[in-house]
Amino acid sequence: MHVDLGNGLASVASPGVSRESLERLDERVGRAHERIERGRKNGEFGYAALNLPQETDASAIERTVAPLGDCESVLTVGIGGSALGAATIGEALGLLGISVLDNVDPAWVRETLDGLELAETAVHVVSRSGTTAETLANFLVVREAFEDAGVDWTERTIVTTGEDGPLRTLADRHDLPTLAVPEGVPGRFSALSSVGLVPAAIRRGDVESVLAGAREGTAIGELEGSLFETPAYGYGAATYALSERGAAVNAMLPYAEGLERFAEWFAQLWAESLGKDGLGQLPARALGATDQHSQLQLYRAGPRNAMVTFVRPRERPELSIPETDFEMLSYLGDTDLDTLIDAEFEATEASLAAAGRPSLRIEIDRLDARSVGALLYDMELACVLVGELMGIETFEQPAVEWGKRAARGLLGAEGEFPESEAVGEKTRLSVEPDR
Amino acid sequence: MHVDLGNGLASVASPGVSRESLERLDERVGRAHERIERGRKNGEFGYAALNLPQETDASAIERTVAPLGDCESVLTVGIGGSALGAATIGEALGLLGISVLDNVDPAWVRETLDGLELAETAVHVVSRSGTTAETLANFLVVREAFEDAGVDWTERTIVTTGEDGPLRTLADRHDLPTLAVPEGVPGRFSALSSVGLVPAAIRRGDVESVLAGAREGTAIGELEGSLFETPAYGYGAATYALSERGAAVNAMLPYAEGLERFAEWFAQLWAESLGKDGLGQLPARALGATDQHSQLQLYRAGPRNAMVTFVRPRERPELSIPETDFEMLSYLGDTDLDTLIDAEFEATEASLAAAGRPSLRIEIDRLDARSVGALLYDMELACVLVGELMGIETFEQPAVEWGKRAARGLLGAEGEFPESEAVGEKTRLSVEPDR
Repeated sequence: MHVDLGNGLASVASPGVSRESLERLDERVGRAHERIERGRKNGEFGYAALNLPQETDASAIERTVAPLGDCESVLTVGIGGSALGAATIGEALGLLGISVLDNVDPAWVRETLDGLELAETAVHVVSRSGTTAETLANFLVVREAFEDAGVDWTERTIVTTGEDGPLRTLADRHDLPTLAVPEGVPGRFSALSSVGLVPAAIRRGDVESVLAGAREGTAIGELEGSLFETPAYGYGAATYALSERGAAVNAMLPYAEGLERFAEWFAQLWAESLGKDGLGQLPARALGATDQHSQLQLYRAGPRNAMVTFVRPRERPELSIPETDFEMLSYLGDTDLDTLIDAEFEATEASLAAAGRPSLRIEIDRLDARSVGALLYDMELACVLVGELMGIETFEQPAVEWGKRAARGLLGAEGEFPESEAVGEKTRLSVEPDR
Repeated sequence: MHVDLGNGLASVASPGVSRESLERLDERVGRAHERIERGRKNGEFGYAALNLPQETDASAIERTVAPLGDCESVLTVGIGGSALGAATIGEALGLLGISVLDNVDPAWVRETLDGLELAETAVHVVSRSGTTAETLANFLVVREAFEDAGVDWTERTIVTTGEDGPLRTLADRHDLPTLAVPEGVPGRFSALSSVGLVPAAIRRGDVESVLAGAREGTAIGELEGSLFETPAYGYGAATYALSERGAAVNAMLPYAEGLERFAEWFAQLWAESLGKDGLGQLPARALGATDQHSQLQLYRAGPRNAMVTFVRPRERPELSIPETDFEMLSYLGDTDLDTLIDAEFEATEASLAAAGRPSLRIEIDRLDARSVGALLYDMELACVLVGELMGIETFEQPAVEWGKRAARGLLGAEGEFPESEAVGEKTRLSVEPDR
């Protein structure tokens, strides 16, 4: 991963950070790096995720999925961190036939299942606790769909879960191939484990190269604790500094359709890790060049409360634009889409700088397994650094528990759920035509 | 469209707006309403969009697309407002086979074209000016793909464009069926015209009901100029009030997969219309229930700079969750996904209120043509109201011109483009390992 902080400097943008402030901040980055390294070496909760590139066994994953044989499609049944990593890696590697059932919308679940040839589909069920309501409900529906289609679901299902829980019990009972969610790794940091890699492995993606890329990008144990030398720290520290100076929003703007899901994965990583104690930076998902015709007006001329993170591959496949008989557009013929999207990227980046709006630039070599592994790992490391600098509990997500308990209460689960009573006490102010 | 402002009140949330402040604001809403009505009646630029439900001729669209016959797929070639409306309406109506080519990523363009049976595909090319670089470049590529496949593209292509320009010339030269982008309607307000309705019409969607829904929801000419009586004004005014009180971000959180694109359409509408003069409210796209496992932590426990807009259909198709042999999860069996997603919706809404975070609730009757028409229209009207209250030029997008000119310069178009010189003068601060 290559990082250029130039357009985040105070000499270019407001909010912006001066070089002097970055130098001062670098001392704190050094101390945070020591904390991160200690957590990683001791396998502390959360920090343990940073060891995944070394510890995930690609060949074990490949052996586990081998009995499924060739599958046209893989359906991941999971939600949040149990789904986004798999979707991100599958898309970035250009693997077709990888889909996720990460919502409980009845019409969409039915449509998704109707669109699959179940006899040619592998199902990957993912839940650490084995109790996630959405995942288990969807899996029950999927299982019934297989039964209705006369396909033995036990031959088509692989499970990734924790050491115990209902999903583990079920896998044991039906003798399903099972992989473990790694210890000490929160869902949003689990892309580089079986959680994120199984679907790609089933579709014959190069998962070993994803891990190798992550190892290469990071050179674990050899990282310098400096924002000027380690790209992930450079990105994290500059983002933290811009956030402190008013960039309440971080608009993630990759210039590649294959990174659309990456922006979603990043949004979860950033929001759930850093949104605590009244702190945090709100991630907004965007996509270049498309969103130049949508969100750009606001980023360039709206409130000075946002920074943009550009991501682009340095190399792309070629696709020539044919010569044209359109007058006024002859400049497009004789070039290619690669050149066009790169011109748009540079023009948009410059247009923000010209308006004094901060942006940071991330580049990967090309959209392939190695680069994607490096990108995911480095963004995780950047996030952990920002959490250290903010002084928050990066690896927890306490605020989502209230709603989970309220929902369980509403659904009549056994136990006491006082949260569900608040639902009935909603304050109402309906806007109604006076007819 | 039904609107409930209760959880945006100061008695519930901070930022929040008091009932007294809403009453004071209502006088301004009344005056803004008069301005909007005048603009609409006189067909002024932008305001003219509010007449589309009356003026768009569904049967003319259906007649124009009739010669294409039955098509398995429709590919819209357009970007921004020329693509998002069509994608939103197609998805919300549950029509399969509607896709958009709204980016110039070479790998993705190739993959999209490879995935289509071109002999069964209709192409809808949309550009008001007829000069949009991305759209024209993609159309040149699409045309060549048809030629390579031995399919006569002139038999499969329909054009929506302005009165003149290169695309109009091309359509005339090849005698293509052509529809006009309506006068005085910016792209992001054009969903309820041929721009947004052609693909649905080709796929036999009920476009007349989309327009009827828009007319019904609004009862044009009979609207009360009060935020307490007109749902669109209620939503717009409360959002404006919350924005003034610190809700810099508006997280659009529909609880329906069929409204995922709607959130993207809304983001364009909101960002490009309101992001001006240092003002505006940043739209963040989300999706329920999925993003409960992602962005919710931040919305509930992060900075108090965001409001959430919930959208849900009141009715959904049923899909039972089969009985289960999972212990601990028997509460899920014997219910259905509809009940589950609604419980999640209510629990999440209550969880934000319990944390004192503002949200507004929008409901539609069900995900069908009428309700979607009403939803799109009412959100446009809400946006126009917010623009009036903010005192900005809602219908312009001046900040995107700089980048367009820079890109043209980089691509070697004829003319003077001093903007492109700034691209080469980028400030750099690369983070590099010191090896």
